[in-house]
Amino acid sequence: MSSFNTDDFIKDSVRKLKAYQVNEVDAHKKALKLDANESNYILGKNIKKKYADYIKNTLINLYPDPNSKNLLKSIEKFYGISSKNFIFGNGSDELISIILLSLNKSVTVNIPAPSFSMYEIIAKYNDLNAKIIRLNDENFDLPANIESVVDKNTKNLYFFSYPNNPTGNHFDRKIIYGLLENKNNLVVVDEAYIFFSGEKSFLNELTKYENLIVLKTFSKIGLAGLRFGLLFSGDKLINEFKKIKLPYNINSLTLSSIEFFLKNFDEFEKNIKKTVKQRKVLYEKLSVLPFIKVYRSDANFLLIKLNDEKNKIKFDNFLNGNNIIIRNFTGGMEIYYRITVGTAKENKKLVDYFIEFSKNL
Amino acid sequence: MSSFNTDDFIKDSVRKLKAYQVNEVDAHKKALKLDANESNYILGKNIKKKYADYIKNTLINLYPDPNSKNLLKSIEKFYGISSKNFIFGNGSDELISIILLSLNKSVTVNIPAPSFSMYEIIAKYNDLNAKIIRLNDENFDLPANIESVVDKNTKNLYFFSYPNNPTGNHFDRKIIYGLLENKNNLVVVDEAYIFFSGEKSFLNELTKYENLIVLKTFSKIGLAGLRFGLLFSGDKLINEFKKIKLPYNINSLTLSSIEFFLKNFDEFEKNIKKTVKQRKVLYEKLSVLPFIKVYRSDANFLLIKLNDEKNKIKFDNFLNGNNIIIRNFTGGMEIYYRITVGTAKENKKLVDYFIEFSKNL
Repeated sequence: MSSFNTDDFIKDSVRKLKAYQVNEVDAHKKALKLDANESNYILGKNIKKKYADYIKNTLINLYPDPNSKNLLKSIEKFYGISSKNFIFGNGSDELISIILLSLNKSVTVNIPAPSFSMYEIIAKYNDLNAKIIRLNDENFDLPANIESVVDKNTKNLYFFSYPNNPTGNHFDRKIIYGLLENKNNLVVVDEAYIFFSGEKSFLNELTKYENLIVLKTFSKIGLAGLRFGLLFSGDKLINEFKKIKLPYNINSLTLSSIEFFLKNFDEFEKNIKKTVKQRKVLYEKLSVLPFIKVYRSDANFLLIKLNDEKNKIKFDNFLNGNNIIIRNFTGGMEIYYRITVGTAKENKKLVDYFIEFSKNL
Repeated sequence: MSSFNTDDFIKDSVRKLKAYQVNEVDAHKKALKLDANESNYILGKNIKKKYADYIKNTLINLYPDPNSKNLLKSIEKFYGISSKNFIFGNGSDELISIILLSLNKSVTVNIPAPSFSMYEIIAKYNDLNAKIIRLNDENFDLPANIESVVDKNTKNLYFFSYPNNPTGNHFDRKIIYGLLENKNNLVVVDEAYIFFSGEKSFLNELTKYENLIVLKTFSKIGLAGLRFGLLFSGDKLINEFKKIKLPYNINSLTLSSIEFFLKNFDEFEKNIKKTVKQRKVLYEKLSVLPFIKVYRSDANFLLIKLNDEKNKIKFDNFLNGNNIIIRNFTGGMEIYYRITVGTAKENKKLVDYFIEFSKNL
């Protein structure tokens, strides 16, 4: 046959994209891996054994049972929300996909920048109009009069990472409430990092606002490998999302694991507290270093900025040379780095490296 | 605020859909569960122990590593295809979604009927034109001159389940090759059931046809709970699909499990052989029963048809009353049932029930 032309089949919005690059890191090697907002706390021996005993009885030959009564009850209890108002996602990524796939093409998707990159990537290949809301340069706040910067002639969806990734701050709740009061808006509050913030969840507002969607995940507190997220919304919206959620989107081992860990959540509470404490320590140690600015954070990471962009190449080489993996950005954010708050030991190691770098500048 | 209107945000194609209903079955109850084409063979004690030991060391606190060299190498060896030509899916469902999400809206999606229901459901909520190709009533073959029944003014995508679900037959390879020779066609061959068929995989044709996509899964041979599928295609297409595959779509426990089971595949080979043998036994026992017609099958299930539709209500009541779960269909297929080939013991039990029903007709 003559040559096959992908353009005949694959849509423009996909062909224009670049594939998302996953950092290739061998976790078993002794790198200082602080790039992905994972929890580096290892499960205690006792609970690890109990966990292994629990999941080994999972019936992996059968399709997963997403309606498992035990699991649904545990989640209802944990969040105080009826199971008819949530769906599971294969990580928040899949839930973001479900939301965006369900939308009319006339809806504008408003995304703060900088924020979680997947909002924009997924909006684009769903052929939606993605509008960037530039955050305040100083402290990453939303514009106070946010509705004056968006298109008032369309329906508007907003993604708010709360606290925001990668900046670490939480946006002004009053601005979010203001948007929710307007029924021409749909507001997604992504609470991936809220465990570390002390802020109140927007789950409490679900009964008041039919145009609110709340996303949750266990990825940041020690279970990133399980890929488990939750989408909560009122009856009207959740019933639409249920139609396009793939029926068996969460595997049986993850379902068993979540069931187990919800019953043993103390372990995570403990680690969250440690992380919050370590965030303070790391902030204090890093903020005295002259070559960077450190931003306050409510999440399990700190954003830093090089004070002099001339140091970037040297800094990048230093990180590479010492096998220190932190998150760097593109698109105007080249001198910003996001550092996951590690264990006390990891943080000390990182600070020592940074002091060394600072001395050699 | 005044009432929120989902119509403002949610697209027509989603609002028109009904949610896919998952059969609610408590697998731990002593039902005869033969509805979902799962493998009912339990792992041997020895391998089960080795497996439990293996996966308990999975680092669930870290994001999954989809580029794990060990895993990629095992899969390359298993299928004889380079890792640059496949992507993983959270079950075949997600891979079907990725294909359909990537398409120009002008592409027509041609779907044989009866076949796997998700092709049409997912095509619809992706706002694609889904055209049904009615299979021959007698033996479920494709129309020999298939291109005369499709729209020649558009690009055409075809989904072929090979062997076909729920009919169990495999389509004429010549017809599929004919379609592949035309570069205005894109052909997806879904080999979910090929382990049981003795047929040659279309993977061998990948180097010849750039417009071929092959889907694989381990769900039907004993690992449905893991949700692991694979999409194979030539360089051009795979690079497009890689852009919209979510970066961490397979959880760490599934990745570890697949790595383990590929090294211990004997266990599954053994069970596949048992299933093929049992399919023959079950076919022979059922085909002598006067109230049904049984179709020959190359898969791990048999399709049966009630010879008299007046028996349907009685048959359904009998199945319910005895807690026998097999798959029934709607949309003109109400007198057809798909029975998963179970273990020798399960099949005997089923046959005994059917004989009992037959006697009381």
